[in-house]
Amino acid sequence: MAGDTTITVIGNLTDDPELRFTPSGAAVAKFRVASTPRFMDKASGEWKDGEPLFLACTVWRQAAEHVAESLQRGARVIVSGRLRQRSYETREGEKRTVIELEVDEIGPSLRYATAKVQKMSRSGGGGGFGGGGGQGGGGNSDDPWASAAPAPSRGGSGGGNFDEEPPF
Amino acid sequence: MAGDTTITVIGNLTDDPELRFTPSGAAVAKFRVASTPRFMDKASGEWKDGEPLFLACTVWRQAAEHVAESLQRGARVIVSGRLRQRSYETREGEKRTVIELEVDEIGPSLRYATAKVQKMSRSGGGGGFGGGGGQGGGGNSDDPWASAAPAPSRGGSGGGNFDEEPPF
Amino acid sequence: MAGDTTITVIGNLTDDPELRFTPSGAAVAKFRVASTPRFMDKASGEWKDGEPLFLACTVWRQAAEHVAESLQRGARVIVSGRLRQRSYETREGEKRTVIELEVDEIGPSLRYATAKVQKMSRSGGGGGFGGGGGQGGGGNSDDPWASAAPAPSRGGSGGGNFDEEPPF
Amino acid sequence: MAGDTTITVIGNLTDDPELRFTPSGAAVAKFRVASTPRFMDKASGEWKDGEPLFLACTVWRQAAEHVAESLQRGARVIVSGRLRQRSYETREGEKRTVIELEVDEIGPSLRYATAKVQKMSRSGGGGGFGGGGGQGGGGNSDDPWASAAPAPSRGGSGGGNFDEEPPF
Repeated sequence: MAGDTTITVIGNLTDDPELRFTPSGAAVAKFRVASTPRFMDKASGEWKDGEPLFLACTVWRQAAEHVAESLQRGARVIVSGRLRQRSYETREGEKRTVIELEVDEIGPSLRYATAKVQKMSRSGGGGGFGGGGGQGGGGNSDDPWASAAPAPSRGGSGGGNFDEEPPF
Repeated sequence: MAGDTTITVIGNLTDDPELRFTPSGAAVAKFRVASTPRFMDKASGEWKDGEPLFLACTVWRQAAEHVAESLQRGARVIVSGRLRQRSYETREGEKRTVIELEVDEIGPSLRYATAKVQKMSRSGGGGGFGGGGGQGGGGNSDDPWASAAPAPSRGGSGGGNFDEEPPF
Repeated sequence: MAGDTTITVIGNLTDDPELRFTPSGAAVAKFRVASTPRFMDKASGEWKDGEPLFLACTVWRQAAEHVAESLQRGARVIVSGRLRQRSYETREGEKRTVIELEVDEIGPSLRYATAKVQKMSRSGGGGGFGGGGGQGGGGNSDDPWASAAPAPSRGGSGGGNFDEEPPF
Repeated sequence: MAGDTTITVIGNLTDDPELRFTPSGAAVAKFRVASTPRFMDKASGEWKDGEPLFLACTVWRQAAEHVAESLQRGARVIVSGRLRQRSYETREGEKRTVIELEVDEIGPSLRYATAKVQKMSRSGGGGGFGGGGGQGGGGNSDDPWASAAPAPSRGGSGGGNFDEEPPF
């Protein structure tokens, strides 16, 4: 893929990552990162928190399993990937678009933490994934979340505002 | 501002930039950039367009005036800035959030075009702006678009789906 | 190419771009960008210039011609590309490595300037180049500068400190 | 600091990080990251390794200690920081410049590894450092490596090619 809009985000997981598997057995994890800039408040002369940025992230295959195993809610991470726009329709038939991050690489930040790193075999189940760099995308074709969207149970009494939020 | 999520986007303007002025006289321009990645289609062995990413951009002060004067719909640009999340409420009272780009630097791409560059005086009205780098943000406090949002003329019979789009 | 180290640099050209052509007719331009960060000096309470970063840049094909035609010494630019390490040997047989920027996209900054943009035909001589994104690299194989490096005339009386500088 | 040239590098440590302390007690670690791009070889139809990029990195304070404790030679990391140019003189009086990375954030990549993350107290010795974002730089003023450079033992008979390499 060429001409992608790449980005690095540093922030904290808002929740534990959620791990799923596609029908063909590929792992995929989703999570949200909150990145809070800081600015110098001239009045007080102190650093203050700015408005946080929340970014929904998707990571595939072996890395997805590693993320689910290694990171919990609150963990500070460095995430590198490509911005993606996704469109969907609410139950009222309104079209919405959200901007999300397709993760290429992620790790826990060592700014406020140490990490005991355990190297895993690359020849894992589900097929190796291309080594050094950009990859994937093809996984989108059998997104395990896609099937969840029109699930009949959603249309019931509860869960009313599902459509108002990014669907995961 | 520290800890901002910076990003560089390469794409094309979807429309002419829209220039406004704050009550205090600061210029601000808005526009949208469409960035289309390309991927190698294995079946056909050809490059194909991927799903475009649309990103709303805001640029302030002298640069805003230069953008409005220099760039038109369709222009290919390089834009560098910081991702911002903005929340607003629809007329139905629903909360929405959009991700936008606060532009630090922008220029027309020379990939498919030439440019005749005209240097402008830095001592423009409204006060110089800090030279080398990241700036502003404070401008948000008197956003000329903010007042536009609840404009009475919008509330009329038409324009119903204003709330469904980023409000500019 | 996957796994490249991409970067965006904002700065000023230290000289006019130098345009050459490979034996096969491909255009290539070289130039250097000086990027000067600024920091708040706590003692004086003023912004001061930091140590500038100088980065040698290479741009290929149609864009190279556009750069040579559009940009002069001192021009403020936004440059997006991939960091490359290049090794060479001095005449004394010492190995040196330099880090340079292979340009994907470049444009004049509109921060302190306006630009009159002239769209050029894409069907230029030498064959179009892949549209939306990352490209090339292959051009390195017949680098018009490569042949210049060991040119016999350099070994003469003058030009003594050629080896001490990046070779262009 | 504004107008810095920021960059994210993904690669592997070429050696164990080297940890030192300034006279005032601030920790600083140095290490080198090798980032190897991959490209599709059209002749063979296979992905091949490109020319690696080696980047010397410096990280300060608490993060330096965490890096030294958590990462070893060969570890795959994500590093985010600012490019810096540094000039020095060889013993022969030649001026050299190198481009290095001042690290803002680093973590072990979870692509091929898992990590057991241990959150550390922020109130560590030496004073907290500003939380969310870019920082420091001031540390340069008492660089523990600076004093090492002209160390008498280096000036002896051996160590001849010290000048040819970045001095750490």
